[in-house]
Amino acid sequence: MAVSMDDDVPLILTLDDNGSSTSAPLDDLDREELPNENGGSYDVIHDTSSPAAGDCCAQQSSARHNWEMNYQEAAIYLQEGENNDKFFTHPKNAKALAAYLFAHNHLFYLMELSTALLLLLLSLCEAPAVPMLRLGIFVHATLELFALIVVVFELSMKMRWLGFQTFIRHKRTMVKTCVLFVQFIEAIVVLVRQTSHVRITRALRCIFLVDCRYCGAVRRNLRQIFQSLPPFIDILLLLLFFMVIFAILGFYLFSPNHSDPYFNTLENSLVNLFVLLTTSNFPDVMMPSYARNRWSCVFFIVYLSIELYFIMNLLLAVVFDTFNDIEKRKFKSLLLHKRTAIQHAYRLLITKQRPSGISFKHFEGLLRFYKPRMCARERYLTFKALNQSNTSLVSLKDFYNFYEVVGLKWKAKRNREHWFDDLPRTAFLIFKGINILVNSRVFQYTMYTVVAVNGIWILVETFMLQGGNFFSRNVPWSYIVFLTIYGVELLLKTTGLGPVEYLSSGWNLFDFSVTLFAFLGLMALAFNMEPFYFIVVLRPLQLLRLFKLKKRYRNVLDTMFELFPRMASLGLTLLIFYYCFAIVGMEFFAGVVYPNCCNTSTVADSYRWVNHTVGNKTVVEEGYYYLNNFDNILNSFVTLFELTVVNDWYIIMEGVTSQTTHWSRLYFMIFYIVTMVVMTIIVAFILDAFVFRMNYTRKNQDSEEDNGIVLEKEISKEEVVGIIELYKRSSVPTETAQLQKMVLQMDKYGQTSTLFLGRRSRTKSDLSMKMYEEEIQ
Amino acid sequence: MAVSMDDDVPLILTLDDNGSSTSAPLDDLDREELPNENGGSYDVIHDTSSPAAGDCCAQQSSARHNWEMNYQEAAIYLQEGENNDKFFTHPKNAKALAAYLFAHNHLFYLMELSTALLLLLLSLCEAPAVPMLRLGIFVHATLELFALIVVVFELSMKMRWLGFQTFIRHKRTMVKTCVLFVQFIEAIVVLVRQTSHVRITRALRCIFLVDCRYCGAVRRNLRQIFQSLPPFIDILLLLLFFMVIFAILGFYLFSPNHSDPYFNTLENSLVNLFVLLTTSNFPDVMMPSYARNRWSCVFFIVYLSIELYFIMNLLLAVVFDTFNDIEKRKFKSLLLHKRTAIQHAYRLLITKQRPSGISFKHFEGLLRFYKPRMCARERYLTFKALNQSNTSLVSLKDFYNFYEVVGLKWKAKRNREHWFDDLPRTAFLIFKGINILVNSRVFQYTMYTVVAVNGIWILVETFMLQGGNFFSRNVPWSYIVFLTIYGVELLLKTTGLGPVEYLSSGWNLFDFSVTLFAFLGLMALAFNMEPFYFIVVLRPLQLLRLFKLKKRYRNVLDTMFELFPRMASLGLTLLIFYYCFAIVGMEFFAGVVYPNCCNTSTVADSYRWVNHTVGNKTVVEEGYYYLNNFDNILNSFVTLFELTVVNDWYIIMEGVTSQTTHWSRLYFMIFYIVTMVVMTIIVAFILDAFVFRMNYTRKNQDSEEDNGIVLEKEISKEEVVGIIELYKRSSVPTETAQLQKMVLQMDKYGQTSTLFLGRRSRTKSDLSMKMYEEEIQ
Repeated sequence: MAVSMDDDVPLILTLDDNGSSTSAPLDDLDREELPNENGGSYDVIHDTSSPAAGDCCAQQSSARHNWEMNYQEAAIYLQEGENNDKFFTHPKNAKALAAYLFAHNHLFYLMELSTALLLLLLSLCEAPAVPMLRLGIFVHATLELFALIVVVFELSMKMRWLGFQTFIRHKRTMVKTCVLFVQFIEAIVVLVRQTSHVRITRALRCIFLVDCRYCGAVRRNLRQIFQSLPPFIDILLLLLFFMVIFAILGFYLFSPNHSDPYFNTLENSLVNLFVLLTTSNFPDVMMPSYARNRWSCVFFIVYLSIELYFIMNLLLAVVFDTFNDIEKRKFKSLLLHKRTAIQHAYRLLITKQRPSGISFKHFEGLLRFYKPRMCARERYLTFKALNQSNTSLVSLKDFYNFYEVVGLKWKAKRNREHWFDDLPRTAFLIFKGINILVNSRVFQYTMYTVVAVNGIWILVETFMLQGGNFFSRNVPWSYIVFLTIYGVELLLKTTGLGPVEYLSSGWNLFDFSVTLFAFLGLMALAFNMEPFYFIVVLRPLQLLRLFKLKKRYRNVLDTMFELFPRMASLGLTLLIFYYCFAIVGMEFFAGVVYPNCCNTSTVADSYRWVNHTVGNKTVVEEGYYYLNNFDNILNSFVTLFELTVVNDWYIIMEGVTSQTTHWSRLYFMIFYIVTMVVMTIIVAFILDAFVFRMNYTRKNQDSEEDNGIVLEKEISKEEVVGIIELYKRSSVPTETAQLQKMVLQMDKYGQTSTLFLGRRSRTKSDLSMKMYEEEIQ
Repeated sequence: MAVSMDDDVPLILTLDDNGSSTSAPLDDLDREELPNENGGSYDVIHDTSSPAAGDCCAQQSSARHNWEMNYQEAAIYLQEGENNDKFFTHPKNAKALAAYLFAHNHLFYLMELSTALLLLLLSLCEAPAVPMLRLGIFVHATLELFALIVVVFELSMKMRWLGFQTFIRHKRTMVKTCVLFVQFIEAIVVLVRQTSHVRITRALRCIFLVDCRYCGAVRRNLRQIFQSLPPFIDILLLLLFFMVIFAILGFYLFSPNHSDPYFNTLENSLVNLFVLLTTSNFPDVMMPSYARNRWSCVFFIVYLSIELYFIMNLLLAVVFDTFNDIEKRKFKSLLLHKRTAIQHAYRLLITKQRPSGISFKHFEGLLRFYKPRMCARERYLTFKALNQSNTSLVSLKDFYNFYEVVGLKWKAKRNREHWFDDLPRTAFLIFKGINILVNSRVFQYTMYTVVAVNGIWILVETFMLQGGNFFSRNVPWSYIVFLTIYGVELLLKTTGLGPVEYLSSGWNLFDFSVTLFAFLGLMALAFNMEPFYFIVVLRPLQLLRLFKLKKRYRNVLDTMFELFPRMASLGLTLLIFYYCFAIVGMEFFAGVVYPNCCNTSTVADSYRWVNHTVGNKTVVEEGYYYLNNFDNILNSFVTLFELTVVNDWYIIMEGVTSQTTHWSRLYFMIFYIVTMVVMTIIVAFILDAFVFRMNYTRKNQDSEEDNGIVLEKEISKEEVVGIIELYKRSSVPTETAQLQKMVLQMDKYGQTSTLFLGRRSRTKSDLSMKMYEEEIQ
């Protein structure tokens, strides 16, 4: 049966306009098709089906079994190609395959992720815990042990899949195993001793998160950061070298001045010039010497010009350049990897008899494993979209487009222009009128004016509202007026365009949600629900709509949305660095700063907390910096963010240093350098993305309207009927209901074919492909 | 006579290997050559020579006169092409030409520059003057009037050259005229009233500097800044828009907290969020609300993430992109302009009889006007280098390379490898030995080790030297030891390589000067000359030599030197902005801050100056910020630099604001935005230059040793003799002594030809040419 099904496919294709010459000869009908011998690595199963003799049915069934295995393996190859998994981790036998399948589904991924998150979140409850979340040592140590055991289970599954040899060779997994081992021992020690020791190794917990399947982007970022490191470090050394030279120079020049506390020792000189690198102590560090001799400013101006304005920018330039280069090379190697994966899959799908391409039957079998959710119609459309030559087979050259085509979302091209075309005449005219109104320039600009007026109104209103009761009981009438206008606009647009089309635009979605928020805010005001007052405050966000007016803003905001996933992953990467530093900071500096802790240091004022009583009034003098501590992980994160912003970071550093040793400065300096690396990478990334995008726009100025990738394919009724037949005859359970409905619909409208549109948004990879076209050949 | 001279040239060229076929036919010898009628715009002179009849001698002389005019005009065209002067400013008649020549020589340029500098420097002595340089009102007003009269003279020369029509159309000149007019009136008013009024217009004085011929680079920078402005302003508006939204939000959220002085009014909220944009008040602005509710940090984190880490980088990206694009377009238009200039010149130099190219006679005539200092040999070499086809004429296509070739410095390729090759055998062997030693790797690495040891030594020495008498009478022995080693190295290298070759390398020059400085320092120490002690301190600069070790550093430092002229011009541009702001600042804020001026403001501490007496000791508590004032132009510059560095700039702003009105903040905010523009441009420039350079290096990895442009040309003895003959016969006085010496030398060594090397350093334009090769076609 499988055999005859196989040869049905060309029959369908021959119904195509130009297919007759390329249809399979009829004598092929009863040919026994065997998978191409190149493929098929699951020898155990292949061995059972290899004997050519045997009864027909068994042979057919074994051939089908063989085919199923091939489909699965091809699907795995394609997945590996998509995920950039190296092929040496490809499952080598049936046992490994089972483990591979077990370890490659969303349930397993979720388990992985949640274990990693649990381990990370434990630091909320451990020793210097957030007060509200404090747990007993027994509780959190048990939780930790439990999570670690789950990780052990995951790793053993991975070992089963990879085999011991490959497992050992896989660096990331080995590091994870070692960390796991250490964590395990430490958790047991904690449980036995019933007290937490200094556990800096907790900082390594993030490795479990990084290793998650869902955190592939973070891994890529980390790799990119590490690849950018060598040139970065070179320039950093240049920076530090100049710092040392200037420190010596500064020490010689300014230490005779006894009122200058910044250069009295070489160490101070070094530390202060390091801080000056961040400009954080700028005019202050200059002032004592400047007061004595006006020309001493030359030293600082030269230092800042060289270090801050030249070498720091050089750093950015070097990182940007490396980043750019890595992006290009990465894209090339990714493309190559995907092509190799496609070649592997291709070899598994062609038959001995017809080695020049993949028939629909086999393609369909592949998709059943690769994208189980895809419906029969989409599979056929994908096949047709791939098949450039219009023969019954997809050649390797066509198959190379697999990843681009398989992501398309197919939709029948509607013959109706508007959603109300089918309505009665009167209703149609009304809606048509609304549609024209909504699409008119006048309406748009009226709305812009309203938004602008609203913006100015809010500003003026807020400005008049100096001090006090701005959350009054009665809702201001302006709020209601503007909200009504927005509501009417929303209603008109929804009816004029149809809800689906209305919400398919990102900007309309934005309008909708802001209006919704404003409405919720009104509710909150009307029903006096205090905690939701902040929603009212989001009103000015409406003003963002004004940025639609100019093309550059549209471009910028579009790019912003395109960048968002990548930005998020970069943010997560930064958070992982934060986590490591937060743990180390907590282990060393928890509880060292408190009000009035640092009265002997130079930054005493910032940590002061005094309760004067002047007359009968209590005056509180607060320096507040004692709030920037490492007392629990949340505080640590805020402190680290403050260190990232850099301004006045030396106050935090000096506060901690005055309470511990001066070696603590190393922690802060290393953190500064690490965030500098990550931040430079982020800047380089944003630069690269925008410059790339703008170059792209410049190159393709004619195709200004960028609607993503659109493909058009026509399916005739005969083809649909053919597919239904094919599925009916095959023993694979497939739903043909949708296809049958299609036939019915075509009958109803008397069409002989239906046009389908395949659509997906343009990805960076598409852009890169177009940009590097020449180079890639 | 002129005619026969003309036809001698091809005779010389026929002596070339393949020239015989292309030599001019003999019957050309007595042909009367007339300049091509396309050229020659100085009608007055052409008219006198137009009658074809007349005695032979007069005709010849008039033809020569004609040619001389053509040479001059062609030279002017080429100058205009080089300087990117528009052709509509081309002198149109003999009178204009005279004015043009008067206004285009270094004496005139110097006058222009010195007048402009005098005007700028006047602000050192005017009203809020630097104490030491204060001049009477009568004196400085008279000086100003004098300078302005010189400017009037310059402008009148320009008008003579351009003609009234063009003068009016030339925007820059018109602006200059208006400013001049205003300044003139004001200077007279000052002189009459004998007192300075508020003269903000003094800020416009820099226009005189910008208009100088020598400040072309500054003009280009300014143009580039203005061209980058539109996209910059767009993004800036986005930035400010988010700022306003967050200000309203912050006001609603935090103003109920009465201990929070940062958000109590909308104005404060706006100002503090603007300052927060610069991170200058970062943790402080958050602290009061953070102390009350820990989650309020989210507001600040979101604000900073959007504004500082996203939009600010976007700003850089947009400016960088625009910059890049402008650079490319500018290069193209410059190239086009040069080509047009070359075409104009070409048309003036070809003859009616031979319109296919320029003969040496005419080329030589051109060079006599274009580069008067060039010697006869160099002129001929330039001609040969241009002449790709080896015919007697330079075609237009060859002539297009004019600017690239004319900059070459020609030098006879020496047959001797070393400078000591001619010395007696013993001396030769000794020097040869030194040469081998000096060039050996061992020697180099020994020196690196010595430098490294020296560096560590200095560090340790300085570290041990805590406090006090480090300029002791007796010179430390380590200093002498290391200096001796460096001295010996210098001596060995100079003798081994020969002084000329030694000093031709930038790195050796650096070594030399550092060693010289160290020696001077030793002298200063030995003879106890205190003011020169600082030289001793420059010792660590030796360490910079270590950076030769790695290729990346060599690259970076080379690029640094290449960038230097452009960086200097950008620095000058920044200084011009500083000047404008300094003048405005002085007019409004001179004398408003002084010790204890701002006790009522929030930044009182920074301006405090208290003289406690604790026990019997006087303790001075100084805030020092009163030093950052606008009391004279030098102080203003330092203050503005502090504002540029941004850290704690709000203290200066608040200090001034508390003494004046709160509109003063506008001055500081505008200054911040302006410096942000300039700084972003500087960053974009550095980024662009380095990325460009690195891309270039990557593209041309095979030609790693970048020695600049080198061209090789051989001149045979016959050619030299021919040129000498030519000059002898011509009536133009030219020195042929050098050529004759060449012939003698060739005779001495029995050579038939000499090889010459033309060399110049690679400029950005060469690189661009190579990079944009494909695009430019």
